[in-house]
Amino acid sequence: MDKIKVAVAGLGRIGKIHLKNLCRNFPELEVVAVMDIFDGSEAVAEEFNVPVFTNDYDELLRTPGLDAVVICSPTDTHADYVVRAAEAGKQIFCEKPLDLSLERVKEVLEIINRYGVRLMLGFNRRFDPEFQRIRQLVLSDAIGDPQIIKITSRDPGPPPIEYIKVSGGMFLDMTIHDFDMARYISGKQVKEVFAKGAVMVDPAIGEAGDIDTAVIILTFEDNTMAVIDNSRKAVYGYDQRLEVFGSKGMAQAENNFPNSHKLYTESGVSGDLPLHFFLGRYDASYNRELREFIDAIISGDDMPVDGKDGLLSIAIGLAAKKSVEEKRPVKITEVLNCKKLFED
Amino acid sequence: MDKIKVAVAGLGRIGKIHLKNLCRNFPELEVVAVMDIFDGSEAVAEEFNVPVFTNDYDELLRTPGLDAVVICSPTDTHADYVVRAAEAGKQIFCEKPLDLSLERVKEVLEIINRYGVRLMLGFNRRFDPEFQRIRQLVLSDAIGDPQIIKITSRDPGPPPIEYIKVSGGMFLDMTIHDFDMARYISGKQVKEVFAKGAVMVDPAIGEAGDIDTAVIILTFEDNTMAVIDNSRKAVYGYDQRLEVFGSKGMAQAENNFPNSHKLYTESGVSGDLPLHFFLGRYDASYNRELREFIDAIISGDDMPVDGKDGLLSIAIGLAAKKSVEEKRPVKITEVLNCKKLFED
Amino acid sequence: MDKIKVAVAGLGRIGKIHLKNLCRNFPELEVVAVMDIFDGSEAVAEEFNVPVFTNDYDELLRTPGLDAVVICSPTDTHADYVVRAAEAGKQIFCEKPLDLSLERVKEVLEIINRYGVRLMLGFNRRFDPEFQRIRQLVLSDAIGDPQIIKITSRDPGPPPIEYIKVSGGMFLDMTIHDFDMARYISGKQVKEVFAKGAVMVDPAIGEAGDIDTAVIILTFEDNTMAVIDNSRKAVYGYDQRLEVFGSKGMAQAENNFPNSHKLYTESGVSGDLPLHFFLGRYDASYNRELREFIDAIISGDDMPVDGKDGLLSIAIGLAAKKSVEEKRPVKITEVLNCKKLFED
Amino acid sequence: MDKIKVAVAGLGRIGKIHLKNLCRNFPELEVVAVMDIFDGSEAVAEEFNVPVFTNDYDELLRTPGLDAVVICSPTDTHADYVVRAAEAGKQIFCEKPLDLSLERVKEVLEIINRYGVRLMLGFNRRFDPEFQRIRQLVLSDAIGDPQIIKITSRDPGPPPIEYIKVSGGMFLDMTIHDFDMARYISGKQVKEVFAKGAVMVDPAIGEAGDIDTAVIILTFEDNTMAVIDNSRKAVYGYDQRLEVFGSKGMAQAENNFPNSHKLYTESGVSGDLPLHFFLGRYDASYNRELREFIDAIISGDDMPVDGKDGLLSIAIGLAAKKSVEEKRPVKITEVLNCKKLFED
Repeated sequence: MDKIKVAVAGLGRIGKIHLKNLCRNFPELEVVAVMDIFDGSEAVAEEFNVPVFTNDYDELLRTPGLDAVVICSPTDTHADYVVRAAEAGKQIFCEKPLDLSLERVKEVLEIINRYGVRLMLGFNRRFDPEFQRIRQLVLSDAIGDPQIIKITSRDPGPPPIEYIKVSGGMFLDMTIHDFDMARYISGKQVKEVFAKGAVMVDPAIGEAGDIDTAVIILTFEDNTMAVIDNSRKAVYGYDQRLEVFGSKGMAQAENNFPNSHKLYTESGVSGDLPLHFFLGRYDASYNRELREFIDAIISGDDMPVDGKDGLLSIAIGLAAKKSVEEKRPVKITEVLNCKKLFED
Repeated sequence: MDKIKVAVAGLGRIGKIHLKNLCRNFPELEVVAVMDIFDGSEAVAEEFNVPVFTNDYDELLRTPGLDAVVICSPTDTHADYVVRAAEAGKQIFCEKPLDLSLERVKEVLEIINRYGVRLMLGFNRRFDPEFQRIRQLVLSDAIGDPQIIKITSRDPGPPPIEYIKVSGGMFLDMTIHDFDMARYISGKQVKEVFAKGAVMVDPAIGEAGDIDTAVIILTFEDNTMAVIDNSRKAVYGYDQRLEVFGSKGMAQAENNFPNSHKLYTESGVSGDLPLHFFLGRYDASYNRELREFIDAIISGDDMPVDGKDGLLSIAIGLAAKKSVEEKRPVKITEVLNCKKLFED
Repeated sequence: MDKIKVAVAGLGRIGKIHLKNLCRNFPELEVVAVMDIFDGSEAVAEEFNVPVFTNDYDELLRTPGLDAVVICSPTDTHADYVVRAAEAGKQIFCEKPLDLSLERVKEVLEIINRYGVRLMLGFNRRFDPEFQRIRQLVLSDAIGDPQIIKITSRDPGPPPIEYIKVSGGMFLDMTIHDFDMARYISGKQVKEVFAKGAVMVDPAIGEAGDIDTAVIILTFEDNTMAVIDNSRKAVYGYDQRLEVFGSKGMAQAENNFPNSHKLYTESGVSGDLPLHFFLGRYDASYNRELREFIDAIISGDDMPVDGKDGLLSIAIGLAAKKSVEEKRPVKITEVLNCKKLFED
Repeated sequence: MDKIKVAVAGLGRIGKIHLKNLCRNFPELEVVAVMDIFDGSEAVAEEFNVPVFTNDYDELLRTPGLDAVVICSPTDTHADYVVRAAEAGKQIFCEKPLDLSLERVKEVLEIINRYGVRLMLGFNRRFDPEFQRIRQLVLSDAIGDPQIIKITSRDPGPPPIEYIKVSGGMFLDMTIHDFDMARYISGKQVKEVFAKGAVMVDPAIGEAGDIDTAVIILTFEDNTMAVIDNSRKAVYGYDQRLEVFGSKGMAQAENNFPNSHKLYTESGVSGDLPLHFFLGRYDASYNRELREFIDAIISGDDMPVDGKDGLLSIAIGLAAKKSVEEKRPVKITEVLNCKKLFED
């Protein structure tokens, strides 16, 4: 079989991670082109032996024989890049979120549908070995019917204020991963959101119109619940934990640590902090999500995370925002008319 | 100095625990009388060498030289017994809750005030070594300003339906401990409650007008938050954990286990379940709370948990109930006019 | 049934622990007399409501109706006190070791036999919930045939040099507990000992003719092995762990901690040290061993730890000493002719 | 700078691991040739885009511009291949052990010396993040002077009997890693070995003249000690732990697990087994050791593990063997006259 031909658009931090994984761990594909609007693409192409580099997305799409594109450019280009890739008939992997506007997302999904290409969204945490193990335990009925899902998700530090201003707010930028995780673990739809938000980390975040600390209750269609707590700044690092409580038991996933050592001295017992940086913490997940993307291209199966998953996580995020503003629980149907979509 | 003379009213499960602790671990006091409306008091008196036994509470209070009474009778007698003890000028330890009606609780507290006796409420978990350690870490600024408090509190199984019917509901019967814990750990007042409740354990609980599963967000006066999750039935035992996240770090208290063993076999790594029964789990706390009660009697200092603590936990419970019923966040001031009380 | 009448000889640290346990937790017995050659016995008797106090051991034994004596006096009185109690026909609990001389121990055991009384030795660690759980796992075949037993046993600090001089050396004073534990867990006899000892904690210990650090390999009759490592000074506290590796798995018992808290800060994750003091660490075991002593008196069953257990642990200790001195593995039969004893 | 040119000799399990790491993670080098006496080398060369493949070691060494060779062929070829690479003036990475005969090892080291090339031996565990962290703690004086080192090293299952017959015995095949680890962690020389060995896993191993279970005490030149326990078969997986006890504290490294999950059900708390397979467990270490090999080539610095390290671990292994056979502690000087070597 011919090798699958893949291009990468956007060569920032996450773009380079994906490029590296594609080049090293996938003998059945070749990266045929890379693109970034800034100048660095040549050096990157050289480092990874990629034959074509460009700063023009359309040129990238015109690379001969191209099968799929991996979109890692800034959020505000996602929808546009996805649409152009769909028009060009390419399979698409796109970093989350697709767009900050629900209307725009719906539009994009319809275009995708029309062109018959498949889209996978980069909710990488679904592919993390820790969370996958919990998902398996849920699927195998090891904990019975899930009743309460608890997600702890705290960043080591806030992004720059300039980023926060264009991020769509913490719920769409950060918590969106947790919304997707709640859906992934439960396998159910969220019907209602109640969120409390506060500014406790940095007043500048408040001045930028955002929050940095939040607690959110999601209610699923069958009245089971998920609780998420977020902070933009956990001084001890990147805190990513999951717990599922059910009728037959409870399962927990802990943080990941660089090593297991314990040191006992006169002053106490100590150990190293959890992995601080999301790229290190979710290293395996980034590789596995591309693995499943490529496998789905080869098999023709459905993408493991698709456009609707992206749409619904954004809807939950918007409902959470509305809940904080209006100080009341908000139904998903208040922000998204899902019926038509789910009838398809 | 003369020994402090203590009487115990109510010789059920918790009454016997307190009696045993008082007899064994407090050389500076003597238990001079026990009382229960049922017949067993004679045997108990004999077992613990208590000179007087009776089924008449007033007779108990008339025991010569009596300094203090420990009230462990059913909830619906608490208010009445406390009032009569106050009228008799005794120091009072009373199991929680004081009463299910806020009005009645306020009344009782005024009577207590009038008679100049002191009342301690049995929020034993404050005296648990695990939670006290977390409280010390908060007080010592080890975690900085607390921003999110997380309390997991799940029972191994629901009480009988007949008990549930008169219990005042899960929030006043079970979660009330968690409300008090949130206040104890934060040292702050709760201003708003949002609660989601569901019946997932046993439909009969729903038919009795109660819930068995809940998630609650408390908002403190400074906008910091606490999250509590409850279930009446954790098949793996009694699940009692606490986490405090703050500006300088995070502290966690785990469950208590009967032993530390880990068994590695072909099929995995396993260990024993957490301590199942609340009396075993909170053994140390029951002893310590009486220790502090007796110390406060001797020193004349304020009781470590007083009537206002009881009042406020009940108010939070009622607000939680209202929140579930009205599907919205409820302010404490909607259920309790605290101003006057706190001006005292 | 009449209450069992017990006397306590020796009111030092461990004597008081036993006295307190006997008084508080055993309604079926009464402590009728206490004895110490120093003057404190009166105050102790008063504190625990013991009617008779004396500084004369024979007077203690003459207490009317006395059934059993608990011997907690210094090691050099053990053999003599046991013999006199046997002659007086009392059941005997004696702290370990019975004596530092094997000949004397054998003599005492013969006297015990002759008088038909029963003797239990205070190897309290057998009754520790941690180690009992491991023993249960071994007995239930959860780990299959034990192949390697590992015992870590380190003290928080060395005893005074004056004590060390009369202690019989680290192997007979401290490691003897571990020798007994190895026998208890395996249920087998030790046939050979190889020991390496060193002075690393305090040169004064070396000058006193003892060692403070050791590693010992025990070989059981079936060639399975135990490894013990000892130090007189673990700055982080009292380190008491056990691991059993077998054909079907492995079981571990960890140290005990005052609480489970974990604190995450910028500088790492930390927790409290293990329980430092042996009385706290082995609190439950002291109570349980007396429980089994009293039960054996009532039932007439064999004592759970008897004179032979004491004899064999001392023999292993003497073989270890010889092994260090002669720098070679030493067979138990070199220090003890066990045959006759075990034929009985 | 020109890329470093590396060849790989031996394309078995470990050879492929090294080849993959060299190809993927070292942009500053190129793998120019691979060799295996069996036929598979062509397919491997193709998979990894290696231009030259051969079944002739001398041809491999003649690859134009070759800087270094990585030797992963069977043990009995190591010495010969190393010598020929030295004669050809190449830098050498060789899997352990260099040879099973001390005389041959000394010879090889002299030849290496004569030709002025550098040799690194593949004691990969030194580069494992767990053990490196412990080493750092020792170096930083966090635990003070190490007094007792404990190494647990158990395989998930024995190799085939045919392999065992030519392996040099468990001490030279398996424990040799632990001997090197003891030296690495302590930074000291071993002066004496006492070993007990037994056949508990499979009688066929005994019939082949080997053992499958062992406990070993190493004594260092300063009388501090290390204890190693080994089994060829831990049914629960690959058990690789380390503990260092010192004057200021104690440090432990635990096993590595595929995930952190804990499952609580009615029957207990459980989790997954440690990583079973040594390639997965030591994945990071294999990469890091090549990293340091390449770095040493570039910098001209000493190799982090050199021929003397190999020599000394073999000497300890031979002393252990002798100790089991002669049932006594054996001095290293009985098997190796080190003086001359270390004077160099």
